[in-house]
Parts: sequence; C-alpha cells; structure tokens
Amino acid sequence: MDKKRLEKILTEVKDGKQTVKEAVASLLTWPSEKIRCANLDHHRNLRTDIPEVIYGENKAPGQIIEIAKSMLLQDYVVMATRVTPEKAKAVCDEIPGLIYYNKARMLVGNREKILPDRGRGVIGVMAAGTTDISVAEEACVTLECLGNDVERAYDVGVAGIHRLLDNQELLESATVFIVVAGMEGALPSVVAGLVNKPVLALPTSVGYGTGLGGFAALLAMLNSCAPGIAVVNIDNGFGAGCMAAAINRKKVSDP
Amino acid sequence: MDKKRLEKILTEVKDGKQTVKEAVASLLTWPSEKIRCANLDHHRNLRTDIPEVIYGENKAPGQIIEIAKSMLLQDYVVMATRVTPEKAKAVCDEIPGLIYYNKARMLVGNREKILPDRGRGVIGVMAAGTTDISVAEEACVTLECLGNDVERAYDVGVAGIHRLLDNQELLESATVFIVVAGMEGALPSVVAGLVNKPVLALPTSVGYGTGLGGFAALLAMLNSCAPGIAVVNIDNGFGAGCMAAAINRKKVSDP
Amino acid sequence: MDKKRLEKILTEVKDGKQTVKEAVASLLTWPSEKIRCANLDHHRNLRTDIPEVIYGENKAPGQIIEIAKSMLLQDYVVMATRVTPEKAKAVCDEIPGLIYYNKARMLVGNREKILPDRGRGVIGVMAAGTTDISVAEEACVTLECLGNDVERAYDVGVAGIHRLLDNQELLESATVFIVVAGMEGALPSVVAGLVNKPVLALPTSVGYGTGLGGFAALLAMLNSCAPGIAVVNIDNGFGAGCMAAAINRKKVSDP
Amino acid sequence: MDKKRLEKILTEVKDGKQTVKEAVASLLTWPSEKIRCANLDHHRNLRTDIPEVIYGENKAPGQIIEIAKSMLLQDYVVMATRVTPEKAKAVCDEIPGLIYYNKARMLVGNREKILPDRGRGVIGVMAAGTTDISVAEEACVTLECLGNDVERAYDVGVAGIHRLLDNQELLESATVFIVVAGMEGALPSVVAGLVNKPVLALPTSVGYGTGLGGFAALLAMLNSCAPGIAVVNIDNGFGAGCMAAAINRKKVSDP
Amino acid sequence: MDKKRLEKILTEVKDGKQTVKEAVASLLTWPSEKIRCANLDHHRNLRTDIPEVIYGENKAPGQIIEIAKSMLLQDYVVMATRVTPEKAKAVCDEIPGLIYYNKARMLVGNREKILPDRGRGVIGVMAAGTTDISVAEEACVTLECLGNDVERAYDVGVAGIHRLLDNQELLESATVFIVVAGMEGALPSVVAGLVNKPVLALPTSVGYGTGLGGFAALLAMLNSCAPGIAVVNIDNGFGAGCMAAAINRKKVSDP
Amino acid sequence: MDKKRLEKILTEVKDGKQTVKEAVASLLTWPSEKIRCANLDHHRNLRTDIPEVIYGENKAPGQIIEIAKSMLLQDYVVMATRVTPEKAKAVCDEIPGLIYYNKARMLVGNREKILPDRGRGVIGVMAAGTTDISVAEEACVTLECLGNDVERAYDVGVAGIHRLLDNQELLESATVFIVVAGMEGALPSVVAGLVNKPVLALPTSVGYGTGLGGFAALLAMLNSCAPGIAVVNIDNGFGAGCMAAAINRKKVSDP
Amino acid sequence: MDKKRLEKILTEVKDGKQTVKEAVASLLTWPSEKIRCANLDHHRNLRTDIPEVIYGENKAPGQIIEIAKSMLLQDYVVMATRVTPEKAKAVCDEIPGLIYYNKARMLVGNREKILPDRGRGVIGVMAAGTTDISVAEEACVTLECLGNDVERAYDVGVAGIHRLLDNQELLESATVFIVVAGMEGALPSVVAGLVNKPVLALPTSVGYGTGLGGFAALLAMLNSCAPGIAVVNIDNGFGAGCMAAAINRKKVSDP
Amino acid sequence: MDKKRLEKILTEVKDGKQTVKEAVASLLTWPSEKIRCANLDHHRNLRTDIPEVIYGENKAPGQIIEIAKSMLLQDYVVMATRVTPEKAKAVCDEIPGLIYYNKARMLVGNREKILPDRGRGVIGVMAAGTTDISVAEEACVTLECLGNDVERAYDVGVAGIHRLLDNQELLESATVFIVVAGMEGALPSVVAGLVNKPVLALPTSVGYGTGLGGFAALLAMLNSCAPGIAVVNIDNGFGAGCMAAAINRKKVSDP
Repeated sequence: MDKKRLEKILTEVKDGKQTVKEAVASLLTWPSEKIRCANLDHHRNLRTDIPEVIYGENKAPGQIIEIAKSMLLQDYVVMATRVTPEKAKAVCDEIPGLIYYNKARMLVGNREKILPDRGRGVIGVMAAGTTDISVAEEACVTLECLGNDVERAYDVGVAGIHRLLDNQELLESATVFIVVAGMEGALPSVVAGLVNKPVLALPTSVGYGTGLGGFAALLAMLNSCAPGIAVVNIDNGFGAGCMAAAINRKKVSDP
Repeated sequence: MDKKRLEKILTEVKDGKQTVKEAVASLLTWPSEKIRCANLDHHRNLRTDIPEVIYGENKAPGQIIEIAKSMLLQDYVVMATRVTPEKAKAVCDEIPGLIYYNKARMLVGNREKILPDRGRGVIGVMAAGTTDISVAEEACVTLECLGNDVERAYDVGVAGIHRLLDNQELLESATVFIVVAGMEGALPSVVAGLVNKPVLALPTSVGYGTGLGGFAALLAMLNSCAPGIAVVNIDNGFGAGCMAAAINRKKVSDP
Repeated sequence: MDKKRLEKILTEVKDGKQTVKEAVASLLTWPSEKIRCANLDHHRNLRTDIPEVIYGENKAPGQIIEIAKSMLLQDYVVMATRVTPEKAKAVCDEIPGLIYYNKARMLVGNREKILPDRGRGVIGVMAAGTTDISVAEEACVTLECLGNDVERAYDVGVAGIHRLLDNQELLESATVFIVVAGMEGALPSVVAGLVNKPVLALPTSVGYGTGLGGFAALLAMLNSCAPGIAVVNIDNGFGAGCMAAAINRKKVSDP
Repeated sequence: MDKKRLEKILTEVKDGKQTVKEAVASLLTWPSEKIRCANLDHHRNLRTDIPEVIYGENKAPGQIIEIAKSMLLQDYVVMATRVTPEKAKAVCDEIPGLIYYNKARMLVGNREKILPDRGRGVIGVMAAGTTDISVAEEACVTLECLGNDVERAYDVGVAGIHRLLDNQELLESATVFIVVAGMEGALPSVVAGLVNKPVLALPTSVGYGTGLGGFAALLAMLNSCAPGIAVVNIDNGFGAGCMAAAINRKKVSDP
Repeated sequence: MDKKRLEKILTEVKDGKQTVKEAVASLLTWPSEKIRCANLDHHRNLRTDIPEVIYGENKAPGQIIEIAKSMLLQDYVVMATRVTPEKAKAVCDEIPGLIYYNKARMLVGNREKILPDRGRGVIGVMAAGTTDISVAEEACVTLECLGNDVERAYDVGVAGIHRLLDNQELLESATVFIVVAGMEGALPSVVAGLVNKPVLALPTSVGYGTGLGGFAALLAMLNSCAPGIAVVNIDNGFGAGCMAAAINRKKVSDP
Repeated sequence: MDKKRLEKILTEVKDGKQTVKEAVASLLTWPSEKIRCANLDHHRNLRTDIPEVIYGENKAPGQIIEIAKSMLLQDYVVMATRVTPEKAKAVCDEIPGLIYYNKARMLVGNREKILPDRGRGVIGVMAAGTTDISVAEEACVTLECLGNDVERAYDVGVAGIHRLLDNQELLESATVFIVVAGMEGALPSVVAGLVNKPVLALPTSVGYGTGLGGFAALLAMLNSCAPGIAVVNIDNGFGAGCMAAAINRKKVSDP
Repeated sequence: MDKKRLEKILTEVKDGKQTVKEAVASLLTWPSEKIRCANLDHHRNLRTDIPEVIYGENKAPGQIIEIAKSMLLQDYVVMATRVTPEKAKAVCDEIPGLIYYNKARMLVGNREKILPDRGRGVIGVMAAGTTDISVAEEACVTLECLGNDVERAYDVGVAGIHRLLDNQELLESATVFIVVAGMEGALPSVVAGLVNKPVLALPTSVGYGTGLGGFAALLAMLNSCAPGIAVVNIDNGFGAGCMAAAINRKKVSDP
Repeated sequence: MDKKRLEKILTEVKDGKQTVKEAVASLLTWPSEKIRCANLDHHRNLRTDIPEVIYGENKAPGQIIEIAKSMLLQDYVVMATRVTPEKAKAVCDEIPGLIYYNKARMLVGNREKILPDRGRGVIGVMAAGTTDISVAEEACVTLECLGNDVERAYDVGVAGIHRLLDNQELLESATVFIVVAGMEGALPSVVAGLVNKPVLALPTSVGYGTGLGGFAALLAMLNSCAPGIAVVNIDNGFGAGCMAAAINRKKVSDP
C-alpha cells in the first residue's frame, strides 16, 4: 500500500504528471509520515480494539466534557476512566448519550459503535475481595468496549479456597484470565496453578499499613511460583483490559 | 470423563459388581483426586507446553544430575535454568545427551521430544543491550523447548532508535513480543507504541547504582504510557517464555 | 459423617432407591462441596469464635447499615471495625440495638449472643503510649466479642520501665499477651523477656518522620532478640485479637 | 516464695538472729534480685522449653566448641543454629556426642535430656517449596528439642493446590501450624482459610529480583486476608519454633 | 536515703515497732518502688530540666485544655508542642495565662517558674532556610523553658557559605550546636568542620519529590564526613532541645 | 578591584591618611567580606541570570505579597513559583503589574526588566504527556525570565515515536534540551540518542501506584543508556530552567 | 543534502535514468535510512566527541581484547572503563599500545588521535574525599579523551571548608564543574553557591550503613538548595564526563 | 593574635619597613588563611581530642603502613579503624610500636602521647548483645585515645531487663552514655528512661532478614519515646566516640 503510493508518485514523475519539485515536497515528509502511517494502520487497528480513552483522575468536569465532545464525533466508542459519581453527573448533564458505570467509575460514549465480539473466547475476570471489584470492573468495561465477552467471578479470595473451586467451569473455559487482588495478592498464583492459559495479575491498593498501597500484592504477583503469569501496574484495570484484549484477538493480524 | 468414571462406579454398585464399601473407598478420595485429575489433565497439557524445569541457581552439579536423570526417563523435554558453564560441564560429563546453551545458561535434554511448532505464529524477542542477551536467550530457549518459533532482534535499545525501526518486518509479523531491557527499561514502551500485539516486558538486573538490581527497569515497565504491556520478575526469562507460549498457543483449548 | 452420607447414597443406588443419574448429579459437586463442608465445619467453629466482621474504613454509613442488618438476623455477635463516631451515629440512629465502643472505634451488635468465656485464661493487652490505646482497644473488644477475658495495662512504655514492672501480677497470670506499641516498638521485646507465654506484637502507626507510618515499630518487633514473639500488620487490632483468641482456646479441637 | 524469704529475714531480724546491717545488705540488692528471680523462675521454665541456643552464623568453629562445651555441663538440651556442614564437622570432631541435622543446619547436644512430649497436641509444619525445607527443618528440630511432636508436610505450595488438600488429616489434627514459604508467600493465607487454629507464617529468603530477600513473602503474610495469622522474621525457623512451642504448652503455667 | 528508709523499717521490726506482717507489706512492693524511686529522683531532676510536655498533633483543643489545666497546678513550666494557631486560640481562650509562640507552634504555661540559666554556656541554634525556622524555634523554646541561653542564626544555608561565616562569634562561643536543615541537609557537616563542640543535626521535612519528607536530609546528616555529629528524628525540635539541654547541664550530677 | 581597594588602604596607611587602628578595623572583617564580595560579584551576575524567586508552595497570599512588593523595588525580574490560581488572584488584586502564567503556575513581575536574549541559541523544551506540561511550563517561563529563547514540543511521548520524530528541526537546532516526562520517564533517553547536545532530564510526579510520585521516572533517567544526560529533582521545573540557562550562557565569563 | 539526493533520484526517474522499480527499491528504505543518516551525522559528531567505549565491569579480559582490537582499527580514541589492574595487565600484554590509567581504572587506545582542545574553557573536577578520586578520575580521563582541558581539585570536602576556598582561582575560571562526593554529598551545593556556571553533581558509593551505596549522596544532590545543579548516576564518572564535554563544546553545532 | 599580626604588617607599612606591594601580597591570601587559621586553632584543639584516624576498610596493608608511618612522626596518638587481624599483623610486622585491639579491630600508635583524662567524668558504654561488642569497643578505644575514662556494661539487652538494672551504679555515675544495639535497637530507649544524662544511640548491623543491615535498629532509635537521645550512623563506633568525647570535655573552650 505504502509501496503503491510510492510507485504512483514515481510513475507520475516519470510520466511528467508531477514535477520533481512537487514529488520532493511530498516525499520529504516521508520518513516520519511512514512511521506515522504505520501508526495510522496501527491506529486503525486500535480504533476497533483500543478506543480513545480519557484519564479522568485529575481532570475537571469541564475538561472531560470538552475532550469527550470532540471524540464523540468520531466513529468509535469513547471511554473515560476514574470518573467519580459527582464528575460523572456533571458530564452527563452536559452530554446526554453517555453511560456511567458506577462500579467501574467509567463513562462510555458511542457504545452502539462497539464492534461485535471478535475474540477467540470468553475472558475470565476474577477478584479476591469485594473491595477489589471497582478495579476489576474497570478491566471488564474496558474489555467489553473492546468487543470481548467477559465472565466475572468475584469474592473468590484464597482465604476460602472452596469459593474459587466452585468456578470450575470458568476455570476450564476462558481463554485468558485477569485475576484481581489486593492485600497479600495470592489469588493469581492459585489460579495459574489450576489452569493452562495466560493469567494477567492485577494488584490493587486495597489494604493498609504494610500493604504499601498495593506493593505487597504486586511483589507477591511478580514472585509467583506458578509459570504463565504477568503483572500490570497497581489499580490499572484499563491496562489489564487492553492487554487481555490483545491476547484474546482472534487472528493476530486482524484489524 | 470424570462423569463417566463416576457413572461406571455407580452402575457397578447398582449392578452389584462393586460393594458399597468398595465404592466408598474409591469415592472418599474423590475430591482431592478430582482436583488432582484436573491438574493431571492440566499436567498433560503442560507436558507438551511447559516441560519440567530444574532451577539450577543454588543446586550443586550432583543434585542437578540426580534430578535430570529421573526426568529424562519421561517422555518430554527437560530443561535446567541458571546453570554456569562449570556446572554444565560437570553435568554433561555424567549425562552425555544433554545440550548446553551457554548464552542462555541452560541445559536441555530429550530435545528430540519437543513437539513440532503448534503456535499461532512467530514470537519476537527483542533485547536492548548486549548484556541483556543472556536473559533474552533464557526466554528464547524456553520458547523453543515449548515448540514455538522465535525471531531475535538484539541490541535495539532506545538510545539509537533507528536500530529498532530497522526491524519493521518483525514488528509487523510477530504474534507476541518479549522485550528485554535493563537500565532505564524504556524499550517495551517504544515497541508497544509501534505494534498492536501483546508485549511482555522482561526487566534485567543490568546496571549499577540507582539501577537497584533491575528495579529501575521494572518500575519503568510497570508505568509504561503504552497500553498492552505486562511485566514479569527481574531476569525471569523462563517465566516470560512460559507466558508468551501460553499466549501463542494455537487453539486455547488445545493440549 | 461425610462418609455416612456417601454410604447412604451408594446404598440407595444399590437398593434402587436412587437412579444412577440422580446419584451422579449429587456426587458431581462433591469435591468442592466436601471442601465447602470442611469449611462449614470450620465456619461452625468460627461462628462461636470469629464472628462476621465489617471493615468500616471505606464504607459509607448506608453500606454498613445494609450489611449489619442482614448479619443481625443471624445467631451470633456482629462487629464493625474502624467506624468513626460520625458514621457510628448515623448507623446507630438506624439500628437501635448496636453498641459503639468509641476508643476502639467499633460497633457491636447481638452482644447478648456472645458465648461465655471458654478460653484457657485471661489475655493480657498492654500498650506503650496513650496514642496506642485505640488500636489496643480494637484488639480487646474483638477478644471480648470472641468470649475471652481481657486484662488491660496501658501506658507502660519502655521509657519508664517501672510502670511495666508494676504489672507483675498480670505478667505472671495471663496465658497470652498482645503488646501494642508505635514509635520504636520496643515493648514486646521487654515483655517477652519477662514472661514465658506467647507474645503477639502489634505495631501502630503512631509517630512521625522516620516512624514511617508504623514500619519502624514493625521492624523492631520482627527483629526482637527475645524468642516467643510473632507480629501482625500495623494497626491490625482485629487480627491480633483473632490470633490471641485462637491461641487461648481451651481445647484446640473445641468448636 | 519471695514473700516467704522476706518474712524469714524479717522474723530473724525481729528475733535478733540477723542484725539490721545484715538484713540491709541482703535486702539492698532485693529489687534487681527480685526481677532476676522472676527471670530465674522464668529461666527454670525456659530450661524445659527453650534450651540455650548458639547462633552459629558468624562464629568460628572454635567459638562454637568453647560455648557448647560449657553448656553441655548443664542439665538440658543444647542447640546451635545456622551451622554449615564444614563447621559442624569441625565441632563434632572435638565434641563426640553431638548430633548434626544437616537439613536444619543445626547441632544438638544432650539430646537425651529432652523432656518427653508435654504439649497439647501435634504441631503441623508445612513448607511451600523444596528450597524452603531448610528453614522449616530449623523450626522442626527446635520444636523437637523443646519436647513437641511435629508432623511435616512439604512441597505443598499454592501453585498445585491439590497437594495441600491431600493433607486433610494434618489440617484437622494439629493444634498450631508453622507455614513456611518464600517467593509470593501465599501458603499461610490458604492454610488459615482451611483451619481454625493459630497459624505462624514463616517467610524465607527464597527467590530473586523482586523477592527482595524474603520481603515480598513477608509483606504478603502480614497482609493476609485470613484472620488468625502472625508472622516472624525472614528465615527465622528457631523463632517460629519457640513461638509454636509456647502456644502448644499444655498448661500455660506449667514449667 | 533508700538505705536509710530500709534501715528504719528493719530497726522498727527489730524494736517491735512494726510487725513482720506490716514490714512485709511495705517491702513487697519494694523492687518496683525502688525503680520508681530512682525514677522519681530522676523525675525530680527532670522537673527542673525536662518539664512535662503535651504532644498537640492529634489532640483536640478540649484534650489539650484538660491535660494543661491539671499540669498547671504543679510547680514547673508546662509545654505543648505542634499546636496550630487555631487550636492555640481555643486553648488560650480557656486558660488565660498561657503564652503562644507562633513560630514554634508551642504553648507555654507557668513560664515564671522556669529556673534561671544553669547551663555551661550559650546554645547555638542555626537553621539553613526560612522554612526550617519553625522546627528550629521548637528547639529554641524548649531550651529556654529548660533554662538555657539560646542564640539563633537563621538563613545560613550552604548555598551562600559567607552567611554562615559571618557568624564567626557564635561559632566560637557556643557550648553545643543544634543545626537545622531540610532539603540536602548539608549545613551540620559544614558547621562541624568549623567548630570543636558537639553538633546535633536536626533534619526537617522541608522539600519535595526526592526529599522524601526529610529522609534525604536525615541520610546526609547520618553520613557526615565530619566527626562529632549526632542526629535526631525528622522535625523533632523538642527532642533536639532536650538532648542539647542535657549536654549543656553545668554539673552533670546536678538536678 | 579587591586588590585595588587593599592597595588604597595600605597606601593611605603608608601616607598617614589612615591610622593603623582604622585600617585594622576595616581589614578585620576582610575575610568574610571578601567571600561576600565574591558572592556579590556573583550576585551581580545572578541578577541578570537567576532573578530572585519566591517558592509559593507553603506561603499564604499575604506572605507572597509582602515579599514580592519589596523585590519589585529592585531592578530586575521577580518570579514566584507554585502559585495556585486562587493565590495568584489574591496577589494580583493587591499588586496590579504582575502577570500570572496559569499553566506554569507562576507569577512574574518587572517583566519589562528582563534582559534581551543573550544565550548561545534556542533551548528546546519537550514534554511526554499533556499532564507534564505544567512542570515543563515552569521551566519555560523561568528560562524566558532569564532572557533565553525557548521552543516547546509537547505530547511527544515514546508510545508514539513518530510524534517525536516530527520535531526533527528542533532536534537539530537547539543548544540544550530539557526533556520532561513522568510515568516510565523514557523520553530523555530517546532524545539523547538522536542529538549530540546536553539533555537535562526533568522527571514529573505524573502517574500512580508504582510510579512512586515520580521515582520511577527519576530512576529511569538516572539509568539512561544514552550518554550526555543529567537529572534534576522531581517536578523541579525552576531548577531545570536555571541549569539550562547556565549552560546556554553565551560567554561563560559573561555577567 | 537529503533533499539533494531525493531530487537526484526523482530527476533520474523523470529522465528515464532510473526505472520506477529501482527508485521504489531505494526509497522504500528511506525512513529508517533517514533516521539512520541523522544518526550517522550524529555519529560523525560523536566520533570526535564521544569515542566508542567498552564497559569493562562484567567482561573477561578476552572479551575486552576482542572488542578493543576491532575498535583500534578505526580512526579515533578508544576507551574501556572499570578495568581492574589485573584485567588491564592481561589486555595490555596482548595489545601493546594501550595506556592504563590506574586511578581511573581505564584503558585508552589511539590516544594520539584525540582532537586538540576545542572546548570553550577548562573544566573543573572537584572531589570531596580521597576515596572519591577513582570516580573523579574516570570523569577526567573521559573528558581528556574527548579533547577537553581539565583542572583537578581533590580532597576539598565540606568538613574543612577552607580547603575548598583555597581554590578560588579554579572556582572563577572554569566553564563547567563536575563535583564528586560520597557520604553526605554536600560539596556540589557549596560549590554551586560560589559560582555561576553549571555544576554537575556526581555521587559516589563511598560510605557504609545509611550511605545506602551512594543513595544518601544522590538524594542530597537532587535536593540541593542551590540552583544550577544536575545529577548523574552513582559512580558514573564516564556519564558526567560526556555531559560536561557536551556543555563545554565551543560551538554547539560544531562536529 | 590575628589582629596582632595585622597590626604589625600595617605598622610596618606605616613605618616604611614594608612596601605596599609586599603587604598586598601577604594580605591577599588573608581570607582563606584566616579561615584556615581558625581551622588550625581548631586543629590544635582536635590534636588533643580527635587525633588523626585511618579508615582501614578498603585500604591494603601497604597503604595503611605508608599513612601510619608519616602520622607517627607527629606528636599525638594515631588510630586506624576497621583493620582485620590479617591486615593488622602485616602492619605490625612493619611498624613494631603499634598496639592492636582485636575486639575493636583498631590499631593504635603513639599511645604514650595520649593526654591524661581531662573529661568531666566517666563515659558509660553499654551493649545489648555479644555480637555488638566489636562496634562498642571501637567507641571505647576511640574514647580512651581521646583521653576519656570509659566504663563498659555488655550483654545487657532488653530481653533480660534485670541484667541492665544490675548496673545501677554506672547508670547513676556516668556523664554521658553510648548505647550500642542491633536487631530491634530497643536498649537506648530503656536506658534513657532510667537516666537524665545525654544518651548516644549507636545502631549495629547485627541481625538478618528484616534487620536490613542495621536500619531496623536505627529507625527504632530515631523514634525513641524517651527524650535526650541522638543517633549516629550504623556501626559508627568511631563517630559515637568522637561525639561523646566532645560532650564530656571538661571546659568547652578548652583545647
């Protein structure tokens, strides 16, 4: 394609349809353009997979409204993460079509433009405690906005191992797992010992004192004795969702 | 299957072919057995994917020899990681068929029993500096032992970004990337910005002073501004290899 | 018991009172059920020892009210920890029977259902400074809700060693000690040097600067030169209470 | 007793059998003596429970020999911890009666003077991985020297949860557990979720990179979501043994 | 004295003025009493040197008022540290005689009862930046309440070394120095290189980012290349004042 | 000059125009005066380069007003950093001539007294993300107040490397770079790999969880694999500006 | 230049001297080639400024010899850092022309090819203690290999401030300073307070205990109260030399 | 004196005995000379108090010999710290008059030149455990070389508080205390609670795991609840000795 456009320019030069000066002008920006093109291709892919996202943490409602409005003009789903109920209300008052997922603390627009499921299978999202659910839901809503099927299993922490084992079916069927835990962060190790699919460990800042804002859980996950685990940043539900979506993609070269 | 075996026992009880006492005896161990069975199924899967591995760091040659000998009797590939050349020599003198990968510091046995490639595509393994190659090779040899195709791109660190961009083809073709870097650990972010496949970031302990034995690189990777990255433990080439193999598996429910 | 139920099912199959299909249905869920049963037994034990608890830190009064109401229907004591006076007032306005322990910042319901003392002896709870009392009281109220006798000795920090030695009687009579200290966390070492019973060290976040939110005290306690000490998380009065109650239980196999 | 001795002195003063000067002389040292007495009582208790111990880490064989010889004259068991095989050989060559436990890296003398089991029940010592066994054995040998019955369950790490569940009997019978784990340190949480007895979590320095020499495991254990857990210092098998022995003591006021 | 009281009791027993039972009663509490006496002697000393102090950080005005009122009945100066202007106003409204030092954020009562200067000389208090003055003043007011002469030299940070050298006279005359600095904490090293008296380094939490709340300054001070420096906790002006007063005491055995 | 003044005094002594006593008086303060003079010379230089600055973080509007008013009487530009919009409004209401740069959160007075550009060239200020712009602008406004030409390139983070490469011209023309980044802090390494001028890396506290308030970025920058990088404190835009101005100075011995 | 080559190709296409296919072939690699070209230009610059360097820390003599031999064929100076005397001897035995700087622990080859001094002035390298000299010399030799004039002032630590002030001349004449210090790392702040040129702070790992392998010095330097300081990695003499050389370059656009 | 020399020069100028040029020459170096003089005065003081010291840690025997030889020519005591027995032997073989203190790991020369005791009283040096003795002895020998009387009380750790209380006499008589402890570092707090003299806390690196090489003890000491404590670097016996000597000096203005 790139090559075709290049041939076209050169042929036009050869044929006298473009002057050398015109061709030089368009080719001079070629290098970064080519990389940008690569990125645009990439972006096209991303469009269907990783839609634009607004990190709402330090943004005022006005800023979110402004960015969201311009994004909604485009042809794909729009997400804003870490939006408090108060901010969400202010934004929704201004932009009627948005949906607020209050567990996930996310705002979603153009939801009708999500592509139908194209992944290889269902993604299992498991959370250890009830306080981990907010982060888990950020991963779930991200995944659903990226067109994936998600199955949730919450409150399956290791202090009551039978609760996890009750989810035998999900353990067997999912193509990839996101396992969310704070405090001692042990759940991903146990899950990875029961399945042979990739497990994404998502530590949360749930805990106090020596929990170190999620570092205790993070370190536990990085040191798991079970192979087949990789870890994302503390409380990074969005990042875990993007990674799981990338893994679940049906044909890796698909857009 | 489990169900079938259960039906068989019950039918035999019904038909008087087993006494109640006999059935009780075999069913009493059912629970852990069932979990173990799940694991055995899982183990069967693992057999073809994650062969047994010997962590050689704190083991004397004699210990490695003893474990390796018993493993080699089985039907699948055997790996030992973190084996110094001296240890490797001592072990190979005793067990002739082993192959020593000195860059990866790994010993491999039963290499002929590796299953032919069954992954979805090639796995790209990129390393920032020459000192990262040892860890990268541990990932590569692990992947190859698990039956995957690997393509290497070494010495493509961010301080000379053109070296990375020269690998355009690999960037476009691989199904999953393992990106290895020590020091500032920036390479995974740059790669993830150029591709739309999952990127496994593998920090190494290369560096000194504020490198903190790989923590600087690890933190950089966990905080990547590019979505679609997950991280494994410092210097954990084996773990990165297992995770990448799990992602690359052709049909996720395949053995 | 489990065995009996199994025999019963099998006998009924043998006798034609159950079909094989019915038996399969009930036995298929056996494994996790058996573990759950173990847990239920365990839960039965717990019912009398570690009642349900609500962690109040990040919960709104409405959430506490909702959970508490459903718990109060059950037959055992109900505790909520880390409840501020404001939250407590809001909850008590809605649920009249609750008692608020304001030093311990705990709400307790169904207090009349606490089982009478069944422990092996009195539990000594000692606190170094007046600012440690809140955490110490969380341990005390937890212990009392679990049916233990507690004796308090507060303001016995090491900077005035005679204050500790004045409690000779308690030092000699208690079966287990919870020793609470912030800042330099030295008290558990001194106590463990005077007694031959188990000492649970409970660090608090009292202090500033290099106190590191309780880490200085925690590290001191983990490095105690006196044998017979174990440590719980910073400010974790509830956890210390549960552990001390488990140690104090009269017959270990008692419910 | 103290009181009796005091009455005796005073009566002798009253009866003119002691001069005031003599009584002053013996009473002037009373305070520290009384404390020392308390300690001596305590020491008498300890004699049967926590025998003298030699920390062998930084001691030359000569130093160990000198201390051990003087201790062996006394009437109770003698332990030396963290003794390498080389040091052990040097010491045993000099002092014939000693026994070397090479897994526990401990030397024990006067073994025949260990009091017969006087604890409330068996102590369960569980270890996650094979590399944790050395630390676990230090706890076991310490416990046995203190007259306790110990039951071991090794290689029961959470990455293969069925291995742990196979030890149902031990999980139900022990009076107290020492649970040993390095790396992610998840095992104590899982065990504490299955039993209602006190669990002592013993982190080991097994691991690399982000394992931080055992800190990852320690933090996980301190942040356990299961109540009834307390933690000792990294690799401190001796300390865990002392604490478990104190908990297991049949009558808490027993010597 | 203690001895005298002991002789008196014994003589009375001998003379039949006390029964044995009475003597036993008063001597039984002897040990801790003696230690307490030592402490009372000590406390008597302290009365003139380290008056009672109220740590105001986490106390409500009402609590400060209550404690202060009871202390003011006694015969010596009363201090409250870390009192905000708002709290101070509330307390002063209730207790008229108090003085509020707003730079030091301290409340002082019974100021007229401070003993006249009894130290060996003047104490030099130096501060690097204007933001360090609050902590420096806490040290100064503490010292003055303990009856010491203080000379201040503020804004003499190392980034303008001539400002420090302008205080040649103070550098030569003081008997002990308190040197206060945040950020890089370099001032104590420079001062200790210019004088041959003891230097107390007092780190402050002034700074941001890598200042780590005063840890950067603390570490610098602990690692000073100049001998004759010792360090107190971050922002601990009161502690530095107490230590300097102890050093400055004219006759060390003086009350 | 110093020498000339010294000669003058000595000549006057020789000529009897000054008594020895008068000369002694003026020479006695010579040492610190000379150092102070050196500093005054230095200060004269600084006057044109690093104008006085008010650190606004912990100052009330009243304090800023008071300091600013006295500074504005002098002959050079006045800067206040870290001033919130609210504080800025309060200050500007009182001192009309001030300009508020709200992105940089800086107040500038006497702007007309900035010396015209005297640097060796333009300074390139690059920022990775939009949230880094505030810190970048603090550097820019500082530089402009010091008389430098600044060219900005924002939102050029490594996750989209083409955005950086689009600034080829700036990469080639600037004499020194300030490269601002939070999160993984990778941008300075990439820039330093593309240019051969000094690169000042300026980490920001942008991020969460393992970002550690900017430490992840700082560590990455200190461990850069590209030579020619030096680092300033987290969020220290003012410091980076001062350092870049010092580097850019046309003739190093210029005032 | 790039543009000229592009025009040439296009003109040849227009003129039929190249086929479209040939032009496509050469232009397809344009992007990375252009970046590479930029880098080559850059490399040309580097050739004269930052010669190739071998990091000798973890390399065996044989590896150093192999790399050095191939580098020596080129036209510029060759450096190897962190070479122990033993390694140096082994290398020099094999490659006669090399010079070993034993204080700097560096090997230098092709020394005659260093370009004559082209910097703007002398670079001042100051070190606090004698143990910092090794790191300081690494910076000095690097600078000299890059064609700069260096003036050293060693043993000028802040604990004897007069030693620093004795170097008044150097303080006034240098164009840029590298200030080397371990332990409390205070020297750069003092120097930056005396000069108005850029100061590069170079922390060393000299110290023990709380020195944290150079982190105490690093933190002090990052938190300097003096503007105009930037910092490099601990013990990174080579990096400091490269940065100082970049700053000192006479004309910034010079090769 | 300085003044006198100044008057002399000026008088000679006035009287024509010196030319102006000559006077300028000698006065130009006045400033740094004056500071140096101050330091020389100071050095004179130090000569009798803090003799020259050789830090032996990273020095070869040859280096120690060379420095020691030149120092021994001077008129005061010479100390070398952290000298292993092997190094000591090598040095003593070469320099016969030296004394080796093997517990303190120090070499002392010119011992006969130590000034007789001129301190205000005895200095108490207390150590918690036997492994702390080496560091304590470094403090003791330093103090004795500085002419102080030292009284030792070792093995008085807080786990057996009666051992400390047995030293009542020393607790009452010493003018200043150095209290040495590793592990939990609790001893200084207890001592400071019993005495009203300054207490220098000296943490040691004794311990393992969470001891963090002495940081646990250091943090405990910095957070002591007892006023009148200051802390030195980990294992810094020499520094503690210098500080205690400075405090103990009889007349603070004495040399």
